Amino acid sequence: MRDVSIIGIGQTKVAEHWERSLRHLAADAVMAAMRDAGVERADALYVGNMLSGELSGQENLGALIADFVGLRGIEAAKIEAACASGAAAVRMGYLAVASGLLDVVIAVGVEKMTDQGSEIVTAALATAADADYEVVNGVSFISLNALIMRRYMHEYGIPHEDFAGFPVNAHKNAATNPNAMFQSPISLETFKRAKMIASPINLMDSSPVADGAAAVVLAPSDLARRFQAAPVRIIGSANATDSLAVHDRHDPLFLSAAALSAQKAYRQAGLGPADVDFFELHDAFSITAALSLEAAGFAERGQATRLAKDGEISLSGRIPVCTLGGLKARGHPVGATGVYQIVEAAQQLRGQAGPNQVKNARIGMTQNIGGSGAAVITHILAAAE
Amino acid sequence: MRDVSIIGIGQTKVAEHWERSLRHLAADAVMAAMRDAGVERADALYVGNMLSGELSGQENLGALIADFVGLRGIEAAKIEAACASGAAAVRMGYLAVASGLLDVVIAVGVEKMTDQGSEIVTAALATAADADYEVVNGVSFISLNALIMRRYMHEYGIPHEDFAGFPVNAHKNAATNPNAMFQSPISLETFKRAKMIASPINLMDSSPVADGAAAVVLAPSDLARRFQAAPVRIIGSANATDSLAVHDRHDPLFLSAAALSAQKAYRQAGLGPADVDFFELHDAFSITAALSLEAAGFAERGQATRLAKDGEISLSGRIPVCTLGGLKARGHPVGATGVYQIVEAAQQLRGQAGPNQVKNARIGMTQNIGGSGAAVITHILAAAE
Repeated sequence: MRDVSIIGIGQTKVAEHWERSLRHLAADAVMAAMRDAGVERADALYVGNMLSGELSGQENLGALIADFVGLRGIEAAKIEAACASGAAAVRMGYLAVASGLLDVVIAVGVEKMTDQGSEIVTAALATAADADYEVVNGVSFISLNALIMRRYMHEYGIPHEDFAGFPVNAHKNAATNPNAMFQSPISLETFKRAKMIASPINLMDSSPVADGAAAVVLAPSDLARRFQAAPVRIIGSANATDSLAVHDRHDPLFLSAAALSAQKAYRQAGLGPADVDFFELHDAFSITAALSLEAAGFAERGQATRLAKDGEISLSGRIPVCTLGGLKARGHPVGATGVYQIVEAAQQLRGQAGPNQVKNARIGMTQNIGGSGAAVITHILAAAE
Repeated sequence: MRDVSIIGIGQTKVAEHWERSLRHLAADAVMAAMRDAGVERADALYVGNMLSGELSGQENLGALIADFVGLRGIEAAKIEAACASGAAAVRMGYLAVASGLLDVVIAVGVEKMTDQGSEIVTAALATAADADYEVVNGVSFISLNALIMRRYMHEYGIPHEDFAGFPVNAHKNAATNPNAMFQSPISLETFKRAKMIASPINLMDSSPVADGAAAVVLAPSDLARRFQAAPVRIIGSANATDSLAVHDRHDPLFLSAAALSAQKAYRQAGLGPADVDFFELHDAFSITAALSLEAAGFAERGQATRLAKDGEISLSGRIPVCTLGGLKARGHPVGATGVYQIVEAAQQLRGQAGPNQVKNARIGMTQNIGGSGAAVITHILAAAE
């Protein structure tokens, strides 16, 4: 295999982009990433997207977006792994470059969710769960996660307000990220007073439905400096899975796919949790943030909310998370999210995170979760030497 | 890169499988392929599928099927490129094994279409076309292809009945394929009397909506014989694209993505059309079969129907096509089709095509087309030495 680096990054602001179509958003991110990399051509474009068929009546996004960005003819496909589609597309790009068959590969994550009403979006998101055994019984994606959060609180004796640290941290970081959807800090009081959505998950536990796109350009590391003064190396990349249905798991409070995916990535990188300078985790709900921290080895089981309470997840803490706002406050355009995480990690490792810069960030980790932990893609990235 | 071989194949019969769910069909094919390869584990499972979200309310098929076949935990994702999703998934598996990072990779194509009424299926299939510029004007996928066929007939002065050779050949070959949907020959008279669907495309010009799944197991060629006495080498693999919208093309009668994809595959294999012993082409409509033959270099432009009329596409002809029934008569479960083509090519190259065997078949080519020629994946396969 060849070593692979990120030579370009691009993103749109996460927002309700009613004036931009799916293909426009994707093109904005791809063209920004190509400009950043200084490339005018690419060998392939892999699109991470979950819901274009259901919400925009559009499949075949690979060819559509390749053509729209001026790359008609190149290899292209859409990659889907529910909310982990974005990182799954980067993973495919990584494998393609590693193979030696392709040199310059673009991975773009894009999602356009706000053109449809919330009932349609809720039903579409539920396609990440098991249609025949979960959704048929009336659960939505948020109600499934509410069951998990309730059980976590019960099992470990954690009061609901102990989760506040996750959204408070995310909103604080998003306040200084111009690409974030919510550039407004929230307080503990805001969290406590937030409207209940699916008990115990309240509005501040929940990441927002949003539109957005993010892209990376990948190339072999030995060619990377021709394009980019500060290429970011991908030193770990892993995709792992679990049952879709939560009731089929041995332990609904342990994200085994997240643990497996993290372990594989650590092994490839030759590193462990103590070596990671920041962690872009998947805070679709605050309970997901907690479970991700535990599965990836940053907290003992039942202890993750303590990291949030003690400030250890802040930009200057032991393990900064959601350094540019996370899913909660940067926003969660589902199939794009995994690429946003990787783009933000690259911003940190290039020292371009502005007021959100994690000091001396050399190693960053991202973890993108699809379904209630069914598909998990972890990447470990290293700053240029 | 590492050389890659197919070490196992599996398929379900193509049919209206009202008693089998999406996951059951996929599992039937995957487990047959694993038995054929003699493997009990795999490193990854890539699922080619187009319409599970729209027709079954189910995304996240990678994790779902990996779990259901007893491989919970392994890497998995869904790959979508409209009707070329199946071959796109094989292409991803090929890249993954070629990279050296994964050894045993399964690619499965699956589609479950007959649970829904025809209006819903027609609308879902139209997501392969350009939603904003084609479908918004009321075209369906078949009416788009009817426009292309009408133009072809006009431009080259070809009467409609000259296309009959394609479905007649496909049905003849399907008659002796136990996995085919229509095991019944048709005559020229059947073709002429067939009901018009979207003029000039009649029922016998059109492949059927169907359910089915097919799977291959891939491994590095240097390990392949540990598993399989007759591994089939992948000597060419290429994915190329065009605009989704037919009106955006320089020439609507030339499938430039099919030509580009074939040229890339020929170049990689170091071969040309004259070296190919049979061609599993994408006869979604008879016009598509003609355009594919021309784009891949087997006929001059405007001449493809002559091959059909002269018997050159029959099992004993110059370039046998649809040797086990093709999309028209084996059936076209869209996201599965590309894998069926590759499984059937492997049957031929292993000498296991029974009464359909192409004599001395050493080199086979498959071409899977998504949209009206927007995403095309070509593979060239070689028999074991």
